[in-house]
Amino acid sequence: MADTQFYINNGPFTLQRIEEICEAQLADKSKAQTEVKEVAAMLKAGADEICFFYDKKAKEKAAEIKATACVTTAELEAFVPAGVIKLIAANPKVAFLKLMQAMYAEKTPRGNIASTAKIHPSAIIGEDTFVGEYAVIGEKVRIGSHCQIEAGVVIADGCQIGDNCRIGANASVSYTIMGNDCYIYAGARIGQDGFGFQVMNGKHQRIPQVGRVIIGNDVEIGANACVDRGALDDTVIGDGCRIDNLVQVAHNDKLGRGCVVVAQTGIAGSCTFGDYVVCGGQTGFADHLTIGSGAQIGAQSGLIKDVEPGAIMMGYPAIPIKDFMRQVATLQKMLKK
Amino acid sequence: MADTQFYINNGPFTLQRIEEICEAQLADKSKAQTEVKEVAAMLKAGADEICFFYDKKAKEKAAEIKATACVTTAELEAFVPAGVIKLIAANPKVAFLKLMQAMYAEKTPRGNIASTAKIHPSAIIGEDTFVGEYAVIGEKVRIGSHCQIEAGVVIADGCQIGDNCRIGANASVSYTIMGNDCYIYAGARIGQDGFGFQVMNGKHQRIPQVGRVIIGNDVEIGANACVDRGALDDTVIGDGCRIDNLVQVAHNDKLGRGCVVVAQTGIAGSCTFGDYVVCGGQTGFADHLTIGSGAQIGAQSGLIKDVEPGAIMMGYPAIPIKDFMRQVATLQKMLKK
Amino acid sequence: MADTQFYINNGPFTLQRIEEICEAQLADKSKAQTEVKEVAAMLKAGADEICFFYDKKAKEKAAEIKATACVTTAELEAFVPAGVIKLIAANPKVAFLKLMQAMYAEKTPRGNIASTAKIHPSAIIGEDTFVGEYAVIGEKVRIGSHCQIEAGVVIADGCQIGDNCRIGANASVSYTIMGNDCYIYAGARIGQDGFGFQVMNGKHQRIPQVGRVIIGNDVEIGANACVDRGALDDTVIGDGCRIDNLVQVAHNDKLGRGCVVVAQTGIAGSCTFGDYVVCGGQTGFADHLTIGSGAQIGAQSGLIKDVEPGAIMMGYPAIPIKDFMRQVATLQKMLKK
Repeated sequence: MADTQFYINNGPFTLQRIEEICEAQLADKSKAQTEVKEVAAMLKAGADEICFFYDKKAKEKAAEIKATACVTTAELEAFVPAGVIKLIAANPKVAFLKLMQAMYAEKTPRGNIASTAKIHPSAIIGEDTFVGEYAVIGEKVRIGSHCQIEAGVVIADGCQIGDNCRIGANASVSYTIMGNDCYIYAGARIGQDGFGFQVMNGKHQRIPQVGRVIIGNDVEIGANACVDRGALDDTVIGDGCRIDNLVQVAHNDKLGRGCVVVAQTGIAGSCTFGDYVVCGGQTGFADHLTIGSGAQIGAQSGLIKDVEPGAIMMGYPAIPIKDFMRQVATLQKMLKK
Repeated sequence: MADTQFYINNGPFTLQRIEEICEAQLADKSKAQTEVKEVAAMLKAGADEICFFYDKKAKEKAAEIKATACVTTAELEAFVPAGVIKLIAANPKVAFLKLMQAMYAEKTPRGNIASTAKIHPSAIIGEDTFVGEYAVIGEKVRIGSHCQIEAGVVIADGCQIGDNCRIGANASVSYTIMGNDCYIYAGARIGQDGFGFQVMNGKHQRIPQVGRVIIGNDVEIGANACVDRGALDDTVIGDGCRIDNLVQVAHNDKLGRGCVVVAQTGIAGSCTFGDYVVCGGQTGFADHLTIGSGAQIGAQSGLIKDVEPGAIMMGYPAIPIKDFMRQVATLQKMLKK
Repeated sequence: MADTQFYINNGPFTLQRIEEICEAQLADKSKAQTEVKEVAAMLKAGADEICFFYDKKAKEKAAEIKATACVTTAELEAFVPAGVIKLIAANPKVAFLKLMQAMYAEKTPRGNIASTAKIHPSAIIGEDTFVGEYAVIGEKVRIGSHCQIEAGVVIADGCQIGDNCRIGANASVSYTIMGNDCYIYAGARIGQDGFGFQVMNGKHQRIPQVGRVIIGNDVEIGANACVDRGALDDTVIGDGCRIDNLVQVAHNDKLGRGCVVVAQTGIAGSCTFGDYVVCGGQTGFADHLTIGSGAQIGAQSGLIKDVEPGAIMMGYPAIPIKDFMRQVATLQKMLKK
């Protein structure tokens, strides 16, 4: 199914090879040399394709599987039709990830710097780094090796970018120090002035913002998302954070490790997130909040108070999710009176 | 009023010509040769200008109309002052659309490819297609005829774009197959990786996203909006959809025909919309929802369950709008106790 | 602390000079020749650094101040440790602004037009205006003096931009008349078609949008924000407005002077804001509303009715903030039953 106009398909793979990749066991070893050409969705997969079935809620639909082979669990195996070759995996989600990584690759350019890329003579670009057409790279910028800087990207003076990073088309990066293995998506805006004003002589005067954006390793920042630089201090995005499209991260925010911030969430200035905070889409955080490690925030919530580590919150203003659900139920009951 | 620095004015038009364009009837045929030069807002129009009056709520203000001519309905005609020439239209909203289309045109470039546009030799560009300065068009891209690709646009390898499409300044398009008559606004991001991760070895590992974005005919996608490509499957935007600025459409979403999605709405992954779904601004949809054809969703709602065709929903979480309004009224009453 | 890779530090400054800049009084005049090199956050400042302490809530933490000097108020002075040199200011917030402006400067390019900037021969560019790499400036565009047009910016035909304006990387501007001293941030989209359709022959047909965007003096519009041009009339952003990242301003909106619109807010079409309206992040306004001068709208509110001048509103739908807070308290109480 993956369109070869866009993707490289490393297959076909024998089921024996898939056993190895997926750390899975073929129920019927005589099928070891059977080949599959594609990974496909459970109910879309057909001949020569392999699918995954691990969602218990999909039990009833499993009878409709028409794939040549199916990776599933020991528990769910019985629901897969007899004609489908079964592979049993302890963790089919991880097996899926591994097979996808093995089977498919994007066609990514490597190692060339377009003749139209405008690179300041003082900039240092690592080996095997691609720089696309009309990218602009400022004074004293340092970019590591094996990076992919797409067309139209603007990296302002003094920024540092680690190894193996990707910056998507038409994104802009300024006042930023970035680690390795980061992916900044198309159109993201990193490092602009924070929204900080002081009224003087009847005007909102912009307070000079003299901090930076410090991005750890293995961070993703989504398409058209915005991360403002710090005012006095830095804005910090910890290792392993995943920030989705159209998210706003304001000045001086500090995100710990592995936080997941879903699309269109807005984090006002000077918030501190612990590690592995997860927040659903369109959530809003007032400024100067502390959100404890492992906290989970439901989509569209509005946070106006600090959150304890591990708390699960929802609502506007946000309360513990159990209370929110009771509140919703109570309101529904009132309506029925 | 339309600034000729920006727009072409095809006028002046005689009222006789406006009768034809608007499928309207002049109340006083002796005025057929009177000319008007501009269309203007009801209370702003003056001499040599024509306005439209069809909003019953504006009845009381109609006495202030000072335009030379006014298109209205038989029912509302009596509210228009005596000195204003009246044209009676069965459907004045459509008449307005037609007159605007006839009277005004944008100054759009056509048929030239800027010398600075970077077009891969294998790309195919149709006749009369304009490609702006510093646009970048990748390998094996196909673009139809009569298109307008604005300055700084990046179209990645393998994309297909139909006839008569417009891609606004600095937008980026990748992994996308697009029909005819589409308008992708400035800064929109189409085709980037979806937000899909699997934790392995304590890290959120990105699951390879090997789907595409399939865009039908006559689709609009607003400024700085984001449409992620599918994971295994495709993300699909049906014919005639209207997606406003800053909207997020996640991986694997399928929108039917003629859906209208107002600004800043976010649709999480793997949702399926029927035809002609309308949702107000800043609405959020949880993942894997099915929204029936003709459903209408109030602004800022949060959808966490499937919606029946034709249902009208509002709230957080969303409930039928009648229930939501009763809930609001009940809460107000409680406060007064 | 300000990274000299990115910022110019005009220091060190003697405390005597800081007295002048901040309109503050040294408690101990013998320290007038003591120098400080940086401004830093209250609890981060150390040797050779100056901090500000004016937040009464931080009284208890003031004992931990380790800065060489601290600007504070007469009232709070007693909370600052003995070893720290004190400066007393009547208005320490304004003093902070002034010192920041005096001490730090961004490294901004001036007065050069990049050889790769594509400027139409009919465009007029004022003296000392910088135009970055690959910027595209259309026919008959007029740009004032002392402006900074960053890399990849697209300014469409006919636009006018005053003196001392800055347009951030990869932003696009069309159909716009802009005053002096404006800052349009990276990736902002100004002047595209509004979201206006009329159903005809079963299709949502776009109504030609023939208005403009009129931006006053001293306006800021944030990164990736969108301001659509007017339909018949103009979209107007008054003098001194501050619009944050990812905000949506729809067609025909009129904002008065000095409005502050925080990130991700959406204002539907044809709204009229008075002067000095403030709205928190992620707020939504239905179309055709009138919001009185000085109104304050809490974050994430949903406005569906006009708002009186000076009113303070919150909620979904928005009600006076006092009522909202009582409603929240009442719901909390119900849960405890």
